[in-house]
Amino acid sequence: MTITASSAVPYESTADLGLRLALSAQTADSSVTPNAEFRRWFTAQRRSKRYDVRRIPFAELAGWHFQDGTGNLVHESGRFFSVEGLHVRTSWNGQEDSWTQPIINQPEIGILGIVVKEFDGVLHCLMQAKMEPGNLDTVQLSPTVQATRSNYTGVHGGSAVRYLEHFVPPNRGGQVLFDSLQSEQGAWFLRKRNRNMVVEAVGEIPGHEDFVWLTLGQLYGLLHEDNVLNMDARTVLSQIPSGVGGGHPLHSLWEVLTRLTEVKARRELVQRSIPLANVSDWRRTDDEIAHEAGQHFSLIAADIRAANREVTRWSQPLLAPAEQGLAAFLVRRVAGVPHLLAHARSEAGVLNVAELAPTVQCQPGHAQSLPTESRPRYLDLVLGAPRDQVLFDSVQSEEGGRFHYATNRYQLVEVGDEFPLDVPEEFIWVTADQLGGLLQHSNYVNIEARTLVTALRATGAMRG
Amino acid sequence: MTITASSAVPYESTADLGLRLALSAQTADSSVTPNAEFRRWFTAQRRSKRYDVRRIPFAELAGWHFQDGTGNLVHESGRFFSVEGLHVRTSWNGQEDSWTQPIINQPEIGILGIVVKEFDGVLHCLMQAKMEPGNLDTVQLSPTVQATRSNYTGVHGGSAVRYLEHFVPPNRGGQVLFDSLQSEQGAWFLRKRNRNMVVEAVGEIPGHEDFVWLTLGQLYGLLHEDNVLNMDARTVLSQIPSGVGGGHPLHSLWEVLTRLTEVKARRELVQRSIPLANVSDWRRTDDEIAHEAGQHFSLIAADIRAANREVTRWSQPLLAPAEQGLAAFLVRRVAGVPHLLAHARSEAGVLNVAELAPTVQCQPGHAQSLPTESRPRYLDLVLGAPRDQVLFDSVQSEEGGRFHYATNRYQLVEVGDEFPLDVPEEFIWVTADQLGGLLQHSNYVNIEARTLVTALRATGAMRG
Repeated sequence: MTITASSAVPYESTADLGLRLALSAQTADSSVTPNAEFRRWFTAQRRSKRYDVRRIPFAELAGWHFQDGTGNLVHESGRFFSVEGLHVRTSWNGQEDSWTQPIINQPEIGILGIVVKEFDGVLHCLMQAKMEPGNLDTVQLSPTVQATRSNYTGVHGGSAVRYLEHFVPPNRGGQVLFDSLQSEQGAWFLRKRNRNMVVEAVGEIPGHEDFVWLTLGQLYGLLHEDNVLNMDARTVLSQIPSGVGGGHPLHSLWEVLTRLTEVKARRELVQRSIPLANVSDWRRTDDEIAHEAGQHFSLIAADIRAANREVTRWSQPLLAPAEQGLAAFLVRRVAGVPHLLAHARSEAGVLNVAELAPTVQCQPGHAQSLPTESRPRYLDLVLGAPRDQVLFDSVQSEEGGRFHYATNRYQLVEVGDEFPLDVPEEFIWVTADQLGGLLQHSNYVNIEARTLVTALRATGAMRG
Repeated sequence: MTITASSAVPYESTADLGLRLALSAQTADSSVTPNAEFRRWFTAQRRSKRYDVRRIPFAELAGWHFQDGTGNLVHESGRFFSVEGLHVRTSWNGQEDSWTQPIINQPEIGILGIVVKEFDGVLHCLMQAKMEPGNLDTVQLSPTVQATRSNYTGVHGGSAVRYLEHFVPPNRGGQVLFDSLQSEQGAWFLRKRNRNMVVEAVGEIPGHEDFVWLTLGQLYGLLHEDNVLNMDARTVLSQIPSGVGGGHPLHSLWEVLTRLTEVKARRELVQRSIPLANVSDWRRTDDEIAHEAGQHFSLIAADIRAANREVTRWSQPLLAPAEQGLAAFLVRRVAGVPHLLAHARSEAGVLNVAELAPTVQCQPGHAQSLPTESRPRYLDLVLGAPRDQVLFDSVQSEEGGRFHYATNRYQLVEVGDEFPLDVPEEFIWVTADQLGGLLQHSNYVNIEARTLVTALRATGAMRG
């Protein structure tokens, strides 16, 4: 693939893209896929497509074994992912900490891509009803394409990925609207990232029974429901502005970047891969690698059977969190413009020390068991928020291909003018537009924050 | 440190900063430090300050040892840096490669900072005559502050870092003009980066005999000389635009980012830390860890004595390259605007798969020994360029605190309109302004390219 001067179409010059996105965002029902029809289709998908997921001992995993010497859990191909150990040392304002933990290492960069196309003058997204073994309800809505490198280069011997041609050379038609690498769960993945793409298709796109066309407005509606839009759908959607202007920010983008740089430089985060066998405080049994106090997460093995995935039966490790997580932004209007209180958060496996995260992100049961001074800042405020201050509240699943029943409760909690604008140095007030701008780059906004950026757009609160 | 809404001064709003930088860039001599006076001072500095650098066996290193089990070369404090092993696997367009090598792991983020201040209406940079053991001529001009985290937190027991207060809370006065994390040599460092800062001081700045105030124009002049501006000075200078507009780019910034994202996603780069003892094709003797064919680099140990550094005698490992490197951009004018042919280059220790690098970056002796099809693309063109097409040509030293006599020949080679704009997919034409814009973020432009961005400004060629 080469781009010549003449064929290069700078998307910034398509001045009407913002208007087209705004129209799609404000279109809550569709002539192509009316809401009622979507509901019938989605219910049928969920009814007909089930995985039989059965926990098995590690010894029964096909193709996986604990590596001699390291004890790492690896696949015989040397591909996919592995479970390894990580030693982490942190230091922040004189407070030092260190620990070891298991972590998923998946160095490949996959593609998460949504094909968009105008119907009756309104942009629609092509969404897939995708089965994933770790999902609540098995089937959730995914991007058009959700493919690991192993998937799309055929390492696992499965069938071709439908619609992949829109996202890879040499046949990629259409106009790439958004394209960036974005991080995934830093607490569970070592430096994992995927390519998030949105491509506007040209010409006829053949339909398929597992796919539907939905407007941004329809997708925003579905985000208010629990466990409908999968994690990959949410991260790709976060790349797409809702086209509704956010207003003047409290801090310039330059100030936001400097604040984050300050934290990255002064907070020490030293990551060292270690053999899984050397992880302390975790115990491996025949069918589980678990934290001794039952905290954080465990690793289990599962045998999975189904009819219509790329391969019909396989087994794999899955990460099972100890409890449902909480990810919440405090939201305060400044001169009428909603601002999110972002936290420069470091997690064990983050690529570059810290990313902008929700104000509060934790496992709340464990967090509440800590002494007051060790609890995440603002946790009590979020947990105690009166109902009428909660702008958004739903439970969403994380990566059902790697995690077992991993859910977070996502909340936007509005605070009033009495809440200070002057905040501790690892926090900063940002607008959704600013976060959206940073999403053109990589590793600025973590995946939980990205779901909540989309949530803010979905509430319509951005209209001021 | 907290920033309130009122105290926040967005630097974008200082509309005259560009003009002030342009004035400094065009001021080739200074009333504060006239060129003749600088020359006398610098000669005296080089005459009076010498290190006695003596190669020693590893066994004589004080505080350093080869760790049991891994064979990693580590410091007893667990700080500073270590020499470890790295296994690298790459894949690009079906071509696979893998190797192991020693690599320097220094996870700390240090500060490289220049204090600037107006004298007689012209911005000047406060530069230090700094001794470094691996430097050619020992003394080179460094930023005002060049401090590892160990330096400025006092881990090595040395004296305080002069002028550090301009760069760290809580006393930081002045206006931060530029502030970002930037990568260092990816072939030799594992994910290393430092914080690059430029701060405009307010009030009186006490002078010191080891420091001088120089205009951007003076510094540009010095960049044409060999081994005067050290690596850290060059990387911080690259953050500072010359204030002279670059004109309309061939590709939008969005196209540049998409091209880089495409390469990052499709090129596989899997890095795995391994024990230094397990690195193959390298041999450790009493006083050297060297590649069996004498290629790439070797690690040596040195005993260093001097009078005026932070500590007066110490020993440390140093990395000694096998030969002088070459870093060259092809430059082509497009509608009068100089464009650099950037290469999306992956190196063993890079943080995020690839960064924009010079068109050609290699050890040319080794590269020329390769069969034609394996040589770096455009190498022959650079090596064979007629003298009148070479816009810039000087030899510069890399990090004298880690490397021994590591130099690169930096060149800008102009090509004519017959050179195609349509280039292979891992290359892209960019303007210096575009690279400058990307330097507000991290890990987009590698350190060799950053020296050449400054070089292009220094040639004045950007004026079109």
